[in-house]
Amino acid sequence: MKVETLRWSHNQLEMIDQRILPAAFEYVSYDSASSVAEGIRSMVVRGAPAIGVAAAYGVALEALRLQSESMADFNIGMDAGFSTLAASRPTAVNLFWALARMRGVWESVAEQSSATVAQRLLAEAHEVLAEDIRINKAMGAYGAALLPDGARVLTHCNAGALATAGWGTALGVFRSAVEAGKNISVIADETRPFLQGARLTAWEMVQENIPVTLITDNMAGYMMAQGEVDAVVVGTDRVAANGDVANKIGTYMVAVLARRHDIPFYVACPLSTIDMSIASGASIPIEERSEDEVKGFRETHWAAEGVTIRNPAFDVTPAELVTGLITERGVILCPDAPKLRELFR
Amino acid sequence: MKVETLRWSHNQLEMIDQRILPAAFEYVSYDSASSVAEGIRSMVVRGAPAIGVAAAYGVALEALRLQSESMADFNIGMDAGFSTLAASRPTAVNLFWALARMRGVWESVAEQSSATVAQRLLAEAHEVLAEDIRINKAMGAYGAALLPDGARVLTHCNAGALATAGWGTALGVFRSAVEAGKNISVIADETRPFLQGARLTAWEMVQENIPVTLITDNMAGYMMAQGEVDAVVVGTDRVAANGDVANKIGTYMVAVLARRHDIPFYVACPLSTIDMSIASGASIPIEERSEDEVKGFRETHWAAEGVTIRNPAFDVTPAELVTGLITERGVILCPDAPKLRELFR
Repeated sequence: MKVETLRWSHNQLEMIDQRILPAAFEYVSYDSASSVAEGIRSMVVRGAPAIGVAAAYGVALEALRLQSESMADFNIGMDAGFSTLAASRPTAVNLFWALARMRGVWESVAEQSSATVAQRLLAEAHEVLAEDIRINKAMGAYGAALLPDGARVLTHCNAGALATAGWGTALGVFRSAVEAGKNISVIADETRPFLQGARLTAWEMVQENIPVTLITDNMAGYMMAQGEVDAVVVGTDRVAANGDVANKIGTYMVAVLARRHDIPFYVACPLSTIDMSIASGASIPIEERSEDEVKGFRETHWAAEGVTIRNPAFDVTPAELVTGLITERGVILCPDAPKLRELFR
Repeated sequence: MKVETLRWSHNQLEMIDQRILPAAFEYVSYDSASSVAEGIRSMVVRGAPAIGVAAAYGVALEALRLQSESMADFNIGMDAGFSTLAASRPTAVNLFWALARMRGVWESVAEQSSATVAQRLLAEAHEVLAEDIRINKAMGAYGAALLPDGARVLTHCNAGALATAGWGTALGVFRSAVEAGKNISVIADETRPFLQGARLTAWEMVQENIPVTLITDNMAGYMMAQGEVDAVVVGTDRVAANGDVANKIGTYMVAVLARRHDIPFYVACPLSTIDMSIASGASIPIEERSEDEVKGFRETHWAAEGVTIRNPAFDVTPAELVTGLITERGVILCPDAPKLRELFR
């Protein structure tokens, strides 16, 4: 089954509702920047690359919605749409990367009619989506070469087709390795509190017939100590110019454990996720989400009343713990500032 | 509120049903070895010291139940009761310690009437319970001295009053520190899959008005990296003769993170939890529990269908990561085989 995380249909954006997977598989439709921003905020769609694609469509939808307005109103409305989308979630840089790209396209055709602008933006959103899949497959090929046949690979959160336009970053590496004829088995951390591992990664791998074992987040150390993990591959929401990696909360813990056990720790990372404007991970904004997510799951609450709750959604893994960044231009081993500068030259 | 995890009432053992806390607070009654064994297996009662106390009462209940039988049938029934209790859970050594102690008492009065044996065993069970609280308070005093005023202390699982006859091992240290006038705040890992941290530790600390912050297990590294953790104190289910510590799954991960951040990692450990017959942690049996616990929580299942599941309930922290064992005879810094041998001389 091909997973179309986002698709264009009947002049609307449709996105799989990832809040209710795997119990239900449903698409939700979006027709404006503000509705897409709400879809991002509420995590109907999540995963840095998918958020970027959604934001690109959010801009195009807003242009289509406003194309009959006066040029002045169109411009004001579009600016508001960009702002709303930019405020939806703070950590994944792909959001801002996609918005900057769409703004660049808008500015390049700003003298033309609103209808023409809207069509140009829609074409660009389609290109962002198609490009994301091409990039994932390129990363997949580079990453697959790093995994030995028979590798048991641990991953955290969901950096799969559901986190991208399709194929996936970390899970794309597994798909590419399997496509290349390797036996790969996956160990998925459940990834509290939103349970992307238990719900999304496990679901994707079962769909693909790739063997997958689910563990709670606190079992990763046990599995490594037992010698049951050969490599770790995760995605990322933002990489700083020195190679520090922001990713789903708990990634840092996995990286520390991997180092202790001399297990390679790879980060699948499209260039759009590298933020050369930020010197180190210390400056990456870390989103704190609602207490309700930690109190339980959906309507089931189990936490004792009266307890204080923290809910940082991401953490930062220092570059020194990263064995390699897998990008669409190749693998950057032991990433650091000079190597990343070279990459963008 | 004083938490009576186990109590003797109307010639039965009553235990708080820890499966339903904190949503409901109910006692369940037990009148035989097999019913107590089932209560241990299903985790109505959990926590190594509490399991030991429950097992002692299980032996006494079986003797009371069989006291009108012939001596031959009494002896056969008692042996079966011991076996049933011993098979309830494999990892916590306090279970076997309590059974050995009760068997010793039985053997010391075996020539007397069954009724006399039963009364003697009941008195011993009462003593095991009372002694557990005394030991916890002694450990608490030693442990409290290790925590500076204002300490923010992370704990994993529940090593509290609910894991013992009362007061607690790790949480007993916090109670003793507060009683001594120190400001202590607690960070509780939620502790998937059974959520002892979110449900039991958070509940106990709220009852005591000790400030407590709940995090998911994968946030411990983030909190340490932010400089928000001054010490770690956990309980244990079995300590090997070389100081290796078996405790709730995820403890090893916390210990590895604590070492990386130079945060002291203490284990509150009554002598009854030290198993001098086992040379190292590699020989401690690790219970694997039902897949259902990892699929979700109670009736709520969220894991994708078709995924393989692992559920090791404990892991082993090597002695080299342990800053100190807090026992009722004092603190053993950097525990190793010679120091533990000395302790039991």
